[in-house]
Amino acid sequence: MSLNQRVALKKIQDFLDEDLQNGDLTASVIPHKIVAGSYLAKADGIFAGEDIPELVFAGLNTYNHSRYKTEIISHFHDGEPVQEGDILASLSGDAQDILAAERLSLNLMQRMSGIATQTNLAIKALNDSTINILDTRKTAPGLRLFDKYAVTCGGGLNHRMGLYDAVMLKDNHWKMIGGLGKAVAELRKNIGPTKIIEVEVENKVELLQAIAAQVGIIMFDNQTPEVVAEWRKLVPREIKVEISGGITNETIHDYAGSGADFISLGYLTNSVQNLDISFNLDEN
Amino acid sequence: MSLNQRVALKKIQDFLDEDLQNGDLTASVIPHKIVAGSYLAKADGIFAGEDIPELVFAGLNTYNHSRYKTEIISHFHDGEPVQEGDILASLSGDAQDILAAERLSLNLMQRMSGIATQTNLAIKALNDSTINILDTRKTAPGLRLFDKYAVTCGGGLNHRMGLYDAVMLKDNHWKMIGGLGKAVAELRKNIGPTKIIEVEVENKVELLQAIAAQVGIIMFDNQTPEVVAEWRKLVPREIKVEISGGITNETIHDYAGSGADFISLGYLTNSVQNLDISFNLDEN
Amino acid sequence: MSLNQRVALKKIQDFLDEDLQNGDLTASVIPHKIVAGSYLAKADGIFAGEDIPELVFAGLNTYNHSRYKTEIISHFHDGEPVQEGDILASLSGDAQDILAAERLSLNLMQRMSGIATQTNLAIKALNDSTINILDTRKTAPGLRLFDKYAVTCGGGLNHRMGLYDAVMLKDNHWKMIGGLGKAVAELRKNIGPTKIIEVEVENKVELLQAIAAQVGIIMFDNQTPEVVAEWRKLVPREIKVEISGGITNETIHDYAGSGADFISLGYLTNSVQNLDISFNLDEN
Amino acid sequence: MSLNQRVALKKIQDFLDEDLQNGDLTASVIPHKIVAGSYLAKADGIFAGEDIPELVFAGLNTYNHSRYKTEIISHFHDGEPVQEGDILASLSGDAQDILAAERLSLNLMQRMSGIATQTNLAIKALNDSTINILDTRKTAPGLRLFDKYAVTCGGGLNHRMGLYDAVMLKDNHWKMIGGLGKAVAELRKNIGPTKIIEVEVENKVELLQAIAAQVGIIMFDNQTPEVVAEWRKLVPREIKVEISGGITNETIHDYAGSGADFISLGYLTNSVQNLDISFNLDEN
Amino acid sequence: MSLNQRVALKKIQDFLDEDLQNGDLTASVIPHKIVAGSYLAKADGIFAGEDIPELVFAGLNTYNHSRYKTEIISHFHDGEPVQEGDILASLSGDAQDILAAERLSLNLMQRMSGIATQTNLAIKALNDSTINILDTRKTAPGLRLFDKYAVTCGGGLNHRMGLYDAVMLKDNHWKMIGGLGKAVAELRKNIGPTKIIEVEVENKVELLQAIAAQVGIIMFDNQTPEVVAEWRKLVPREIKVEISGGITNETIHDYAGSGADFISLGYLTNSVQNLDISFNLDEN
Amino acid sequence: MSLNQRVALKKIQDFLDEDLQNGDLTASVIPHKIVAGSYLAKADGIFAGEDIPELVFAGLNTYNHSRYKTEIISHFHDGEPVQEGDILASLSGDAQDILAAERLSLNLMQRMSGIATQTNLAIKALNDSTINILDTRKTAPGLRLFDKYAVTCGGGLNHRMGLYDAVMLKDNHWKMIGGLGKAVAELRKNIGPTKIIEVEVENKVELLQAIAAQVGIIMFDNQTPEVVAEWRKLVPREIKVEISGGITNETIHDYAGSGADFISLGYLTNSVQNLDISFNLDEN
Repeated sequence: MSLNQRVALKKIQDFLDEDLQNGDLTASVIPHKIVAGSYLAKADGIFAGEDIPELVFAGLNTYNHSRYKTEIISHFHDGEPVQEGDILASLSGDAQDILAAERLSLNLMQRMSGIATQTNLAIKALNDSTINILDTRKTAPGLRLFDKYAVTCGGGLNHRMGLYDAVMLKDNHWKMIGGLGKAVAELRKNIGPTKIIEVEVENKVELLQAIAAQVGIIMFDNQTPEVVAEWRKLVPREIKVEISGGITNETIHDYAGSGADFISLGYLTNSVQNLDISFNLDEN
Repeated sequence: MSLNQRVALKKIQDFLDEDLQNGDLTASVIPHKIVAGSYLAKADGIFAGEDIPELVFAGLNTYNHSRYKTEIISHFHDGEPVQEGDILASLSGDAQDILAAERLSLNLMQRMSGIATQTNLAIKALNDSTINILDTRKTAPGLRLFDKYAVTCGGGLNHRMGLYDAVMLKDNHWKMIGGLGKAVAELRKNIGPTKIIEVEVENKVELLQAIAAQVGIIMFDNQTPEVVAEWRKLVPREIKVEISGGITNETIHDYAGSGADFISLGYLTNSVQNLDISFNLDEN
Repeated sequence: MSLNQRVALKKIQDFLDEDLQNGDLTASVIPHKIVAGSYLAKADGIFAGEDIPELVFAGLNTYNHSRYKTEIISHFHDGEPVQEGDILASLSGDAQDILAAERLSLNLMQRMSGIATQTNLAIKALNDSTINILDTRKTAPGLRLFDKYAVTCGGGLNHRMGLYDAVMLKDNHWKMIGGLGKAVAELRKNIGPTKIIEVEVENKVELLQAIAAQVGIIMFDNQTPEVVAEWRKLVPREIKVEISGGITNETIHDYAGSGADFISLGYLTNSVQNLDISFNLDEN
Repeated sequence: MSLNQRVALKKIQDFLDEDLQNGDLTASVIPHKIVAGSYLAKADGIFAGEDIPELVFAGLNTYNHSRYKTEIISHFHDGEPVQEGDILASLSGDAQDILAAERLSLNLMQRMSGIATQTNLAIKALNDSTINILDTRKTAPGLRLFDKYAVTCGGGLNHRMGLYDAVMLKDNHWKMIGGLGKAVAELRKNIGPTKIIEVEVENKVELLQAIAAQVGIIMFDNQTPEVVAEWRKLVPREIKVEISGGITNETIHDYAGSGADFISLGYLTNSVQNLDISFNLDEN
Repeated sequence: MSLNQRVALKKIQDFLDEDLQNGDLTASVIPHKIVAGSYLAKADGIFAGEDIPELVFAGLNTYNHSRYKTEIISHFHDGEPVQEGDILASLSGDAQDILAAERLSLNLMQRMSGIATQTNLAIKALNDSTINILDTRKTAPGLRLFDKYAVTCGGGLNHRMGLYDAVMLKDNHWKMIGGLGKAVAELRKNIGPTKIIEVEVENKVELLQAIAAQVGIIMFDNQTPEVVAEWRKLVPREIKVEISGGITNETIHDYAGSGADFISLGYLTNSVQNLDISFNLDEN
Repeated sequence: MSLNQRVALKKIQDFLDEDLQNGDLTASVIPHKIVAGSYLAKADGIFAGEDIPELVFAGLNTYNHSRYKTEIISHFHDGEPVQEGDILASLSGDAQDILAAERLSLNLMQRMSGIATQTNLAIKALNDSTINILDTRKTAPGLRLFDKYAVTCGGGLNHRMGLYDAVMLKDNHWKMIGGLGKAVAELRKNIGPTKIIEVEVENKVELLQAIAAQVGIIMFDNQTPEVVAEWRKLVPREIKVEISGGITNETIHDYAGSGADFISLGYLTNSVQNLDISFNLDEN
């Protein structure tokens, strides 16, 4: 996954509107003067958001008749580890632009790097390269694109983007339709062959029904590592297994060696500890 | 502050688009059937987001010719403490609608209640009712309205909404203009009398200049409680004093009795620990 | 698939803008008077678009303070066969509204019913219920939701909705990456497990590579029925086979019994013969 | 008429959104590499859409910081005849961009060229240069600008763009107002002098009323060539005559010499046979 | 012309955003309480804007779950004369809503009534019922719909809505094309038969060319009443004559009896003297 | 205040849509040819709108592949006095572009310069440099940004931008809450410390309450110069005084020397006399 710049730019223009509305009051007295500055890591972690300064200043400068172009040099790529004190990017441009856009760029980079860092910690804690870390739909509303991209920067994979691009069938769903098998069959007739069907199972009966229905992925919900390992042996290789539910950075290692293909972690995106990054104007 | 429903509803429609795009694949096989469910607190905290279910289902049902209206009963008001196990709200409606909108309503309510809870903890830790807690512009991009409203639910006050409705003058700014006094004078000529001017000061020279400029608020940046108390005495009562910079829930109490009017805390909104809330469909 | 009413309504409001801009000139002299009318099939075919009148009048009446509500009774459901002379739906409402919205509702229903009819003819001509008919991305720009829904009304299934919800890997793609196998492996690392990967193959070497890569669907591009049948035997059952390329209503039956799972037909949506439907106001 | 690039570009950005949403999944593994390709006619016809590649790539590259600019050379102008095998345009650019935008550009060019071709066939079949071919409002919703422009590429003229820029008065309308003459008089008082009033007549009484009302255009609805010729003689030269209703490419020549000024044909835009055009990447 | 409510409502929602952004600060402390109030004319004039209160409150209450509906009773219709002291409309509703929307409704009604009043004064000053008053494109940007509707309330007719629905050919235009006759001929081939062509002439040579070109309207630019009367006799009755240029309420009567069909007045919409209207809450 | 170009450009694109919709009909026959022209003052006044030509042509040329760039040279800056006959700006560019955008640029510049001129006349008439002129919310809906900017060009200051960035408390408000003092206290708890509270007072009792509540600004509504001077003496210096209500260019001088800080004038923006400016193409 790469950060889709067309979509990201549209969102960033909305984010700028949120902060600027009719304009930056303070800027009304700031001269049009070229200044330089840099983004500085104030903690260790995994970096995510290398395109953010470019996009934020592009969003700001939709019309930039009278201004200087903001020039940006990235010193780190997405997914690279950074340490406290590292200069992440340098830039120069019109003081008015920089003061107006600094906060938004930091808000995004801090959040994204926080997510990437947390994802990476989970991978290290798990310590089983046969199991991939997945995100969930528990993202900050409006920021899913950024949140999910940040997960991949940390080494994770993305689960579905929303309700529209894959099916996750829970017991609430299939009980309304007449059973798991019937639900899968109905779905096959309605959504066409290009959409993956995943089923969440909570006991062995449901597991066997899901296997019989030849779904694409089976999710074991809230099961111990032992149960995961046992159930995994029943599932044919072409069906993937995801485990989910209440797993934390402390407990994730218990699932190493369980044979699952994926572990999904809601906390990666719904309880984000920002990575501290500051922006400093150069003295001159 | 109340959650502006007109603005919130517009944003919620965008958030639904993010999750639904062309529609919920699974819903294509779910019957139109009335079901009931409830939002359940899974941890203790301060509740924020009582209007969210109404708004999310209103956003979903822009066109609801053939569907049942979702009926919602709130059991808690914004700002009230909730305990693990409390039912926050009950609802009934079309199964298709509820399955489509459940996730978004949780994502918002969990974040907002997480912010309210953290704000409230800060107030308790500070334990000085003469000092109000303020938020900052370090909100999740696109969610400022929700984030700032949640701070007020927790008992805090809002700092400016963005760069457009008040001035925060830092040394970076006034050095470009020709000094603090000159900058304030220029601003007065440019932004009219209805906008507050706040100045950030880092030493006593700057402090005295800010007082002389008769600004509305002076921010003491990164000062010890002792310095705050000493500087406060120099500032006339009609100028308000805000302290800011690196204060945490652990250190905030040190500022009790310092005489400041406000403490602003970036972590309230940029490193949110969601309050755990679940949604459960009733068995029937 | 059902026609997503939330998304359809938004598009229909744009379509009304296209036709109405600042308003219907003629309506300025038409009185607000209740009239009745009906949609009449003027040819045989499969009906698609039963929700269209409701949606078009809902789109028109976003603000309907001073108008009568348009009442609509559908006489046919989507997917049902209709014959010349059948009344498809009856309605009554404000003459101004009906004259303004009549044309758009017909433009949509005629196109959708034309697509459903053509899809149904292809299924009958094929005469092999083990092979499903698929659509393509060759839809009228902006009308994909309607076009693809109409295909399901005719008995077909939907291929991917766009470039975003499934992967179709052609030789142009994999040659740039370093071979089919490498491309699939790279994709798996980038797009996560919830997206189907389909590969287009043009010869047996490519076919065997695609099988080895364990993709979800293999498309046989422009192959004779004999080749399809021969290649099909090499493909494991859990991999689905789609055939595509230059198949018409005249030649489709040749592929009956070939063992393919799907035939995709671009002409269903890119060369639509509208089903003739008229709207008539009742004399009174 | 020329294709309005400002309006077309806005629509094309929506069309790209329809196909791309959060981005092209496949592109995530395609390198940023310059490739070349060409649009190839696969059938004979009249070309329309020479600006489409430019507009589609402009729409895609709203933000193109890190990409190569797509360079396009047109080999045919709108309205020119093309033959199977003709290269319509050549281009070079970033492989990611080309693979993402190829389908949309083809969908538009094929439809537009199909409409131009059909219009041109009608003109040739009619074989009376004193009668101009007109389109109708029976266009694909959302594509009216493109559909109507394509008609002019084929040699036709445009009827009104929508309900807002000219009046077409049918018996349904004037019966509600109190007769044809009264309706025209009312319109004159309401819509100002810059809007043409056209009246549809079905018998000689209505014809004489329309002439008396000094309308701009009279439409003879569903009349034989003989009736058209007879009625035409009654109409003063400054009033234009349009004939309409059920005329096909087979029957249009019957109206040659009838004295009408215009023939309008709904099938030009509501039952479009796309002109086959392919896009091929160069081997290298 | 009637005020198109669908289009007006969209614009009014934007106007409310301009004034309210994230919400009315004062409303945060106003209780939800039903109050009554009325719009009062504070000067004599012609009323325009009877639908404005309905539309403004509808725009405000897009989501009105917890509020009281605003009930409005109009006491005057658009186009009627009002006198100082007349109550134009009465309403009751939620105090929060009324305080938020009062200003916008006044801003629109005052402007529209000001335009209607000025138009009516021009008609009275002219005192020749065979000459209709027209508006121009000199409207406040974004308000053309409202401005032009207000002109009709005052008894005027509308000239074209914009550059898109009729042609106004000036000497700047035709000189670039090769003469007036050639320009008209080219236009006829490009814009189809449903668009009126008007030509501005400044001397008799141009006048005769315009007559020969059989255009729809000829505009005499900046001519004395005597010249208008003389030229008018040369123009066949089916071609309409508009006079324009520097005519004021003081000089308009000079053109009575000149034989022109229309006089267009830019000042009606570009130098609007608002009609004074106030809004008063009832004491209770 | 400077004219925010990002926000202004968005609005200007909407204004162009209003005038152009599907395009300028006349332009279809105008060649792509470079022409030159100039904006000419036709009356004396204060200029406002120097950025308007740049912004309007930037708005028009969102996509300008095949056109010449419009080059503009400004000869006057905003706020400078201009005299009849002065050339305000010169430009050269594509004839099609210039003819399409000329009217909008004039409509904006004429209105803005009219507002600036009127503001300047008020300042001269007042003749007391200790009192600043303020605008109000009585702006043309949708044009507040332009209207308020123009006031600053004429030498005035801006009152609040809308209901969202400062509080204006009138008796209607505080009576619903329980008195002026209680209302201010409630507001302080709800809106945070960065928003100014202004109170309108109509008698001395209210005045004393407002002083006691330590509000930011007190507005004396509809008081004679004598009353203003008397009340002013009661108000501490750190509270500002605004006078408002029925003051005209004729009466404003009576308030010179009254000690007020501000006079707000609704007529500056709600009854605008445009400054006459024409656009002329150069002969060549």
